[in-house]
Amino acid sequence: MRNTIRRPGLLVVISGPSGAGKSSTLRLVMERCGDICFSVSATTRRPRPGEEEGRHYYFVSCERFEEMRRNGELLECAEYAGDFYGTPAAPVLAGVAAGQVCVLDIEARGAIQVRRCCPDSVLVFISPPDRAELERRLRDRRTESEEKIKRRMEALEEQMAALPLYDYQVVNDVLDDAARSVLSIIEAERCRTSRALV
Amino acid sequence: MRNTIRRPGLLVVISGPSGAGKSSTLRLVMERCGDICFSVSATTRRPRPGEEEGRHYYFVSCERFEEMRRNGELLECAEYAGDFYGTPAAPVLAGVAAGQVCVLDIEARGAIQVRRCCPDSVLVFISPPDRAELERRLRDRRTESEEKIKRRMEALEEQMAALPLYDYQVVNDVLDDAARSVLSIIEAERCRTSRALV
Repeated sequence: MRNTIRRPGLLVVISGPSGAGKSSTLRLVMERCGDICFSVSATTRRPRPGEEEGRHYYFVSCERFEEMRRNGELLECAEYAGDFYGTPAAPVLAGVAAGQVCVLDIEARGAIQVRRCCPDSVLVFISPPDRAELERRLRDRRTESEEKIKRRMEALEEQMAALPLYDYQVVNDVLDDAARSVLSIIEAERCRTSRALV
Repeated sequence: MRNTIRRPGLLVVISGPSGAGKSSTLRLVMERCGDICFSVSATTRRPRPGEEEGRHYYFVSCERFEEMRRNGELLECAEYAGDFYGTPAAPVLAGVAAGQVCVLDIEARGAIQVRRCCPDSVLVFISPPDRAELERRLRDRRTESEEKIKRRMEALEEQMAALPLYDYQVVNDVLDDAARSVLSIIEAERCRTSRALV
């Protein structure tokens, strides 16, 4: 008889349109789940004041980034505003192998790449309850111009189109419930017989 | 943009070797989950004192049972000690369609039948932490003879062989954790994008 008290690790990808409350949800999840770790991305972007190497990002040259990509050292990568961002594979895969829950906070195009190289990964989409609520949240921040809010709302439709690629959708209506749903997904996936450690 | 605040129903099958703590786990689960309902089986067995029609069982004749089976009115059925037991399909499917979580507490041969007619069902196996712990629990009950405990331990290997048929395994080491895992599985499955209500 197999004994499965030792728990399997898990690679969790979290995406969601801006304003869906992804960061706040993940903060709560991290507070409540012991063995969770967030991945640190590699980027060709210059460090901003206060950003620490290995904590906020691994800052690398364009040459080094291209080498990492070519050598399969990245789980996923994407360009954003002229800079490259990618998830180094080694620490994530080592964490999962050691039984940790590794969370990647990335966009849909990255999620597709992760699913391709790690079919066992779990893809979670955090979405706002509806359009009107998202617009209200963006306005409440008081940091975004009308023009920006309009562009964000246009981007929403495009971001929501990726939803069917994901295994799970967590509708963030009440923050505490959304965090609880993400934690439930993590707990459930670790109980999957297909992940059982022999 | 779709809005999925209305939650999908779910058909959950729970099995597990005797002594794994399935009943105690399910009791806790029921206390903590609002919209859960347990299925009432049909049986050809005579009612025992205190058993109520429609609450503990639907008591039917052998002819009626055979008719139900033939008409596809049962999700699953099995013989046990000369009597027939089966799960009437209609109330379960109606409950799930109305957004309820319907739980069937049945054995592996029934679970296989349910999975066949309801591919969307979720199969959960509750298992004891290990052989020694199960033997200790059976002895602690002080209701079982040595002979019966021996036979149960022999049956355990056979029951555990069904584990790979199940989607999830919950190892019942600490009762409260086991209940929490079952609740997490229910919550996670309701967040599946494949179950999203349009």
